[in-house]
Formats: sequence, structure tokens, C-alpha cells
Amino acid sequence: MQNRQILFSHRPDGNPTPDVFQERIVEVGQPGEGEILCRNLTVSVDPYLRLKMYDRRSYTPPLQIGELIPGSAVAEVIESRAEGFAPGDHVAIYGGWQQYAVTRGKAARKIDLTVAPAGAWLGPLGMTGMTAYAGLMHIGKPRTGETLVVSGAAGAVGSLVGQIGRILGCRTVGIAGTAEKCRVAVEEFGFDACLNYREPDFAASLESATFQGCDIYFDNVGGEISRIVSARFNDFARFVVCGSISQYSGQQPAEPTAYDELMRLVLTRRLTVQGFIVSDIASNYPEFGDKMAGWLKAGTIVHREHARHGFEAIVPAFLGMLSGENTGKSIVHIADPTAT
Amino acid sequence: MQNRQILFSHRPDGNPTPDVFQERIVEVGQPGEGEILCRNLTVSVDPYLRLKMYDRRSYTPPLQIGELIPGSAVAEVIESRAEGFAPGDHVAIYGGWQQYAVTRGKAARKIDLTVAPAGAWLGPLGMTGMTAYAGLMHIGKPRTGETLVVSGAAGAVGSLVGQIGRILGCRTVGIAGTAEKCRVAVEEFGFDACLNYREPDFAASLESATFQGCDIYFDNVGGEISRIVSARFNDFARFVVCGSISQYSGQQPAEPTAYDELMRLVLTRRLTVQGFIVSDIASNYPEFGDKMAGWLKAGTIVHREHARHGFEAIVPAFLGMLSGENTGKSIVHIADPTAT
Repeated sequence: MQNRQILFSHRPDGNPTPDVFQERIVEVGQPGEGEILCRNLTVSVDPYLRLKMYDRRSYTPPLQIGELIPGSAVAEVIESRAEGFAPGDHVAIYGGWQQYAVTRGKAARKIDLTVAPAGAWLGPLGMTGMTAYAGLMHIGKPRTGETLVVSGAAGAVGSLVGQIGRILGCRTVGIAGTAEKCRVAVEEFGFDACLNYREPDFAASLESATFQGCDIYFDNVGGEISRIVSARFNDFARFVVCGSISQYSGQQPAEPTAYDELMRLVLTRRLTVQGFIVSDIASNYPEFGDKMAGWLKAGTIVHREHARHGFEAIVPAFLGMLSGENTGKSIVHIADPTAT
Repeated sequence: MQNRQILFSHRPDGNPTPDVFQERIVEVGQPGEGEILCRNLTVSVDPYLRLKMYDRRSYTPPLQIGELIPGSAVAEVIESRAEGFAPGDHVAIYGGWQQYAVTRGKAARKIDLTVAPAGAWLGPLGMTGMTAYAGLMHIGKPRTGETLVVSGAAGAVGSLVGQIGRILGCRTVGIAGTAEKCRVAVEEFGFDACLNYREPDFAASLESATFQGCDIYFDNVGGEISRIVSARFNDFARFVVCGSISQYSGQQPAEPTAYDELMRLVLTRRLTVQGFIVSDIASNYPEFGDKMAGWLKAGTIVHREHARHGFEAIVPAFLGMLSGENTGKSIVHIADPTAT
């Protein structure tokens, strides 16, 4: 029995073209102990694959030339050597772009195609749904009445983020790239508004649509769109960096801007970038005063002052600090304590 | 009795100059019920003041022309109409750049100048120390053995962050702007290494000094330095945006880069920017499958597929998705399930 496969042929420079892939026909593999042989029914096509095409450090190893293209699939078991699986069972597996896949039973999840069709097991009930749900809950932390902005609002993840946000009581504002997608986002996915970023008045429309500002930005797209959304952030907003599809096909070697570069690292290295003002968080640390006094007393912490003397020295001390003249804390003694 | 004050005279364009300030002599105010009259002994000179000079939305209201320059001070009580305070007491107050201040007793904190000198009450034991401690603990979340990079390492906050990080078992790498500051950071503040960002080989030195990468970046400086540090981030690194002094004196109206603009918002609106990969956080949501299945069944969540058919359609589906042809989840049906 023959197995048709799609392999990675060479790294694209910019947007991938069909010749980035090549086909191969191989014999179908035999399942070993604990494995199942599956016939792939429906395969998933996901943006993260584009990131795997770069030969650079990321959250998954780069695709190797000649490697089978990976991806989630809904499949039917045709031979089982794993407990709990029988021919005819339907499973969700990491099956790749091929007709048949051998996989460990432990890596397969039985699914019921009468409950939901294959696409739903790859979408809302699969990795796509979990991405939308976990990202929104874990980082977005939505609260009733907040405004949630979602880029890629008509896409697989974005369309679910908007719907989950609506269920949780958020005002949802989508962003998409065509009028038709915006229509679907509003009429079908239930976004309160959806804006076409290709319209010349996009920034102004966004300002109207987010009349209470933006509390959560769930970003699938990145680049210039995100820069425009950033201007709408309320205090303590959460910027959930899920993807940056607009940046995935930059020319290699590209000259990404500092912003794009940071966003790429935020995503691939899962950074947390957070601003703070001391008064926001000080009350969490009631132990601070005693602890610091103890450290100072023991000499564990060194206190160094950049001290000036006299009222006239205040302004020069400030200007000098801005230009970096100080080492340690800048202060000005303007009077002596009364001797007691 | 006369009170010498320093007022805000006009908004600077770029680096402030002495004429941004003007002096005024006024009569010393009288304390009302619950208030104290204090003589300021030592005043603090802090970078955040520069941000207050812009007339734009930020975390504190902009300085108004003619307003007294605010700031923390160590002061001596000379008259008290507040319970618990008597003449001769030493207090930490928000006294401003003036010789005498009237303040509510509730806003004053009694301090003991025999425990630590005035500067220490404005530094490690004051807002500066709390900024270092709370920012590092709350956002940096340091763990033993991690590498902590601190910009502005010889500054008021940075010098404390490095020392607290060392106490908590981090490898500490400072960044400062002169060789002398770097020397002090290592010899006095105990940084494991400190690098001069003005040296031409700064990026290479940083790479050597952070040979295990960077787990926490506590940033007081911003701009180009932060961009270089970003390249050293390990997975799940925390980028604590405390300040961006290098950006505070940009020309107004400036043309900040998207990066600088984002960092300004991260600080002033206290954003959380966080990347994620679904596998990092999925296990926190065991309820996901049941919840989503229920929503789908009830029609609360709409699932929309962008489906293609046939093995030949896999590559076109992928290329089409990257160019944005899809609405909803992209999948390819390559076989029909066996009728059962």
C-alpha cells in the first residue's frame, strides 16, 4: 500500500511558493508495539508552519530539508497494536501532510465524528480552540465590560477568541483584511464591530469602535496594525501576542525593525514584558521596610548617594542626573537637622 | 518666615536646561488641623520628573506651568497640629523642591536618622528601594541561578536591583555608561559583571557576560540598549520595564520608533505584553474540552471552516492561508471516513 507525502523541499525567501514543497510516494509503514496505523481524513493547515521554515532558534525546531510537513489531522484507525484502539476508530493525531500515518497510541485521542465534524476537532475542539481559550484566559484575563480587540478576527483562532470574549461579557472589536471578512466576523462570529485595516480611515474607525479604550489586545497579525492598536491601550491592558502572521514571510536576511524583532521574541521565547509604577504593586510587599533596614544594617545592601548641598544645587542635580552624572541615588541636602 | 521654592517655568524641548525652572519666595504656610509644618532637610531628585514635563497622558498628571516641583523629602517637623508629631521629629514627606512644606500628618512617615541617614530614607528605604524590590519581585520573579541583567546599574534603582538579585541568588550583569560606574557597580554594589554600553564591543561583551542567556531584564534606560539585551532572552524571560531614561528627553513633537512608542506605553499604561505557545499553558485548562463542546452544541460558539478537498489542495490551502484567503479554520479533507 502506497503513502503519498508532502515534504519540505527548500527554505522560502519571502512568501512561500508551491516549489517549497515536493511530493514523495513511499510504502505505508507498519505499526510497532503500542502504535496504530491511521488513514488521514482531514489535515490542518496552520500559520506556525511558516515559522518552522526559518533556520533559526524558535519554539519548535526548524523544518529540515526533506522532512515530512507536520500538522494535526483527523484520521481513521486501520490497524491497531495499541490498547484501546480498533480499526474504524476516529482519532485526532499529529499526522502530517500524508495519506497514512503511524503513531503511538498514547499520542492519539479518540474522537466522535457524530458529535462534531472533522474540521471542528481540528478547530474549536483542537489546538486552535485551546490556543484561543488558554491565551485569552491565561494572559488576557477578561472581565465583564472590558473591550477586547482581536486581530485576524476572521481567522481560525481570532474568530474563536472573539466569541469566547463575548460569552465572558467583553465588548469585542475585530480587525480583518477584507470587507467580507468583517461582515462575517460581525454577522456570524458576533463581534460588536469589525474593522478593515486596509481602509484608509482604519485608525479613526478603531478609535470610535474602542470608545472605552482597549483592555485586551489578542494579536494574531503583528506589524503596523499592532502599532495602531497600541495607541488605544488603557492602563493595565494585556497585549496577548499569539502570532504575527504579517511578519512571517519577511525576506531573509530581513532588516526587521526593533518593534518587529521584539514582538518575534515575545512570541517565540514567550517573554513577559510588563510596565509598572511602584504605587501599583507596593502594597504587595509589607515586609519591605524591615527587610531592607536589616540588609542595610548588616551591610548586605550598600547604599550609595550622589549628594549635593544647598538649595541652589537642586536644579543642577536634576539636570546632571538626566545626563547620567550620578552613581547611586541623587539627593540634595538643603538644611541640616537640628542637633538634638 | 520666607519659603524659597522652585517652580516649573516652561516645557523643555529635548534636554531640560536651567531656565525650565524658576524660583519664587513666598511666605511659609500655616498648618491647618491635622497638618504639620516641616523644614525640608534633603530633597530627592528623580527621573520620573522629566516625564511629568510633557503635556500628555501618563501615569501622573502633567506638571502645570508655575507649579511647585514635587518630590520626596526628608524633613524636620517645626510645628505640629497633627496627632503623633512634635517639633524636632524627622519625617519622610512628599515635600517638593522648597525649604518648607505643610503636609497632612497622615501623609508623613516618622523616620529615625540615627538608623540611617537622610539619603537612605529617600533611597533604599524609600520609594527608590520599593521600586527596586517590588518591581524585581512582582514582575521579575527571580529564582536562584538565573541571570539578571540591569540597565542603569550604577543608578539609584539599578544599584539596588542588582544587590537584591544577588541576595536572592541570581547572577547579576549590570549595564552603565562609564568605566567608573561599571567599576563601582562591580566593586561596591557586587554585580558579577558590568558593561559599558558606550564601548564598541558592547554587544559581544554582553553575550559573554550572559553566557547562560538572560532570564530577567530590569530596564531603567530603554532605547537601543534594550534592543541589544533583547537578543539574549531565554524562553520565559521577564522584561521588567521600570523606566526609559534614554527616551525621556526626545524632541517634542518627536518621531519615536514603534519600539520606543510601545515601551513608553508599556511603562506609562503598565501593559503586560506576553507571548505564549499553546502547549505552555494548556494544562491549566482541563475544563476546556467539555466547555467548548457544550458551547458548540448550544450554538453559542460558531465554528466556520475554510475547507478544501483532495490531497492536491493541501499546499494551495497553506499558501492561500498565508495570504489571508481564509475565513475561519483552514483544513483539507483528503479522505472520507469509512461508512459505519
